[in-house]
Amino acid sequence: VASSDASVPELRQKFGPRASDAPERRGAVARDASHVQGDPRAVVAPRSTEEVAWLVRWARKSKVPLVARGAGTSLDGESAPLRGSVVVDLSGWTEVLEVDPVDRIARVQPGVINFELHRHLSPSGLFFPANPGSWTTCTIGGNVATNASGPRSFRYGPTRNWIRAAEVVLGTGEVVRVGTRAPKRSIGPDLLQLLVGSEGTLGILTEITVALAPRPSRRAALAVAVPAATTLGPVVAHLAPLVSHGLAAIEYLDDRCADALRHEPGAQLPGGGALLLLEVESHDVNDETGRLERLSRILKASGLTEDPVLFPDADRLWTLRGASGTALDRALGERVREDIGVPISRVDELLAEINRIATAHHVVSAVYGHLGEGSLHPNFVVAPGTEEGEAVRGELLAAAVRLGGTISAEHGIGSVKSRWIADQVGAEGVRWLREVKRTCDPDGILNPGKIVD
Amino acid sequence: VASSDASVPELRQKFGPRASDAPERRGAVARDASHVQGDPRAVVAPRSTEEVAWLVRWARKSKVPLVARGAGTSLDGESAPLRGSVVVDLSGWTEVLEVDPVDRIARVQPGVINFELHRHLSPSGLFFPANPGSWTTCTIGGNVATNASGPRSFRYGPTRNWIRAAEVVLGTGEVVRVGTRAPKRSIGPDLLQLLVGSEGTLGILTEITVALAPRPSRRAALAVAVPAATTLGPVVAHLAPLVSHGLAAIEYLDDRCADALRHEPGAQLPGGGALLLLEVESHDVNDETGRLERLSRILKASGLTEDPVLFPDADRLWTLRGASGTALDRALGERVREDIGVPISRVDELLAEINRIATAHHVVSAVYGHLGEGSLHPNFVVAPGTEEGEAVRGELLAAAVRLGGTISAEHGIGSVKSRWIADQVGAEGVRWLREVKRTCDPDGILNPGKIVD
Repeated sequence: VASSDASVPELRQKFGPRASDAPERRGAVARDASHVQGDPRAVVAPRSTEEVAWLVRWARKSKVPLVARGAGTSLDGESAPLRGSVVVDLSGWTEVLEVDPVDRIARVQPGVINFELHRHLSPSGLFFPANPGSWTTCTIGGNVATNASGPRSFRYGPTRNWIRAAEVVLGTGEVVRVGTRAPKRSIGPDLLQLLVGSEGTLGILTEITVALAPRPSRRAALAVAVPAATTLGPVVAHLAPLVSHGLAAIEYLDDRCADALRHEPGAQLPGGGALLLLEVESHDVNDETGRLERLSRILKASGLTEDPVLFPDADRLWTLRGASGTALDRALGERVREDIGVPISRVDELLAEINRIATAHHVVSAVYGHLGEGSLHPNFVVAPGTEEGEAVRGELLAAAVRLGGTISAEHGIGSVKSRWIADQVGAEGVRWLREVKRTCDPDGILNPGKIVD
Repeated sequence: VASSDASVPELRQKFGPRASDAPERRGAVARDASHVQGDPRAVVAPRSTEEVAWLVRWARKSKVPLVARGAGTSLDGESAPLRGSVVVDLSGWTEVLEVDPVDRIARVQPGVINFELHRHLSPSGLFFPANPGSWTTCTIGGNVATNASGPRSFRYGPTRNWIRAAEVVLGTGEVVRVGTRAPKRSIGPDLLQLLVGSEGTLGILTEITVALAPRPSRRAALAVAVPAATTLGPVVAHLAPLVSHGLAAIEYLDDRCADALRHEPGAQLPGGGALLLLEVESHDVNDETGRLERLSRILKASGLTEDPVLFPDADRLWTLRGASGTALDRALGERVREDIGVPISRVDELLAEINRIATAHHVVSAVYGHLGEGSLHPNFVVAPGTEEGEAVRGELLAAAVRLGGTISAEHGIGSVKSRWIADQVGAEGVRWLREVKRTCDPDGILNPGKIVD
């Protein structure tokens, strides 16, 4: 993409102080939560769909790439701007435009923080089930753009299932409304579904309608010790049918991750070794008692015989679990942080592969993740972006694909994993991805270098 | 598309007696369940993915359209073959290739009948939640191709949510495996999601991996009379949160549909007027009692004060309900049968619109459908395909779009509704549909004339 020297003055003329190339403004958006260092030429904060459409038309004319950005919590360079791009900062678009308890939807601007939506919905008795680990800071727009989910997708399915409609500015400059407010539709190939997970490479979301679920009245959690020799696949197979009895999450922490959390103040986690964390939701106190008893019985039958620790308020455990990133930061420092998924029947092989890779490269590893969906976050203590770091990553991703899995379960591809996308979708898949991008972004101005190079 | 006189001998040479242009074979696949009369030049029953790929390459070379066909239960011409096309008959591909209770998936050939899969899964304690009205005869391939769901999508979501992976022969002739066996993925724009609902216009499915849910141990149903003046939106709003207490379907039959069913032998439906049918699933007998009591309480609080009739075995009610098509055939004869959806908050307006349209055209109407999702099947006693029949249809679809809804909730677009697709997705949407078709089917040989002309 050619640079255009006139670009910043043009943006200033249109957006005034909402366009900036000041080093501190550019620096603030030059990275996401990955190691990728971007280098934008400017940042613009549009205030309306029309302004976003103007920006896209301007970008096509000027051949300057645009990178939409919410909170910048993406972990694989999804929102790290390529050199010379203009960042479209949507973090100020924080309005919840509508909550309709009859239609069970919320209509939001793309910069609404996941947690703020949760809080806003509290009086309605409804909630938005997608809860990525970064939910206190990440935006709904980013959730859609990466199909980011979290522990609760075990029960509720991925974010994709909860997106009803959107307004989007395509890379053509067209403003289109996709999806319907009506709960179900069968109207041919679905552009909304294509946009979910497209990481800002096809269009820029300017409004999102999400579906809502009835909020459980009680949510308890259990932490239970996992003996070293346990094979986890059969344990998950035993537990999974409890989804019909309120089971909402099956999380795993290996011994290293569990130990990092055990050092958190007031942790009260069962001592020694790996842990399973389980959430059970219920809709009244009678439900809850029966559900917890049933879960404890099945844990025992699965060979997890130590008494579980009960957290009557599940959020206390999830807040603790949410600290695992920073706890691992302290314990391990800089590292390759990954996000892969395999079928449940292959999780034990995957864990063995992770050990094998760590041993072969003489690096420390630590694994946690959403075991109930075979979605794991392996960490390897080796610098990302270095030859060895990326070699470790490549071996892990190859193992995931070999086991019938995915190179990303819930974070996306970004620029960090685009060199492996062909291993996932094949040469035909890459060809298709390039062609489908052209249907929405013929000039390739939206977030270039992501998903496919 | 030009015809090719040499085509049938070429197909005979490759497929032997599995290729035929005999009038009775062509006649048997010339229609689906709609009024659309197709006119295929031949029928071929390939036996392998390689044979399907050969057919697609042959079709590109010969410029002969191909129309994939399962059971032919589609209602809008989705599988009715354009004049001169070759029907790819997949109804003999009936093998369930694998059921994995740990990964909770089934891998099936596209011609497996929905009900046969259900029966096959019985010992596993799992089930495939998509249950279109035609589930005793329709195929899984057709379910994917039209995103066909049914009553239970109120609880489980559309068919789309339960498709994990597929093998497909694209219109390019490429054989690609899309999706993953792993439960969740975020790997960019998702070709599998694009194929769901694409009605055989992008590729021909040769294998499908579906996700399975734990089968409830008990399923009861209630039928309750709906007084004439009831506004239904608020009733659904009251009932919908019971999804957390096992509510699995909220079905509606207006007085005319209910009366047609009341005449079925042994119906035992509450007397007079419209009906709601409700399914409640549970996982043991204690669940069930509490759930039915709660439901009855909320029905009363919603103003439905007559005692509901309990069907301890829900299937008895659904079998009866499944007879509504033939019951209406007897009661009403030939008619426009529609499938639209609106937000719950607009269902009463939609019902008023249906009455208004019927009155204006002096035709009898009858409505039933999946009220819990705002998905309704209006019937108008006027011949489909005639000027007046299509005028009635057009007014109905316009009303659905005006109310924030959809011109198809669960059947698809086919050729019957392609003239209204622009009203749903806009001119930009149509442009995008055409372009995306080219990414998969550059020569336009797959099921032309469907979804977009």
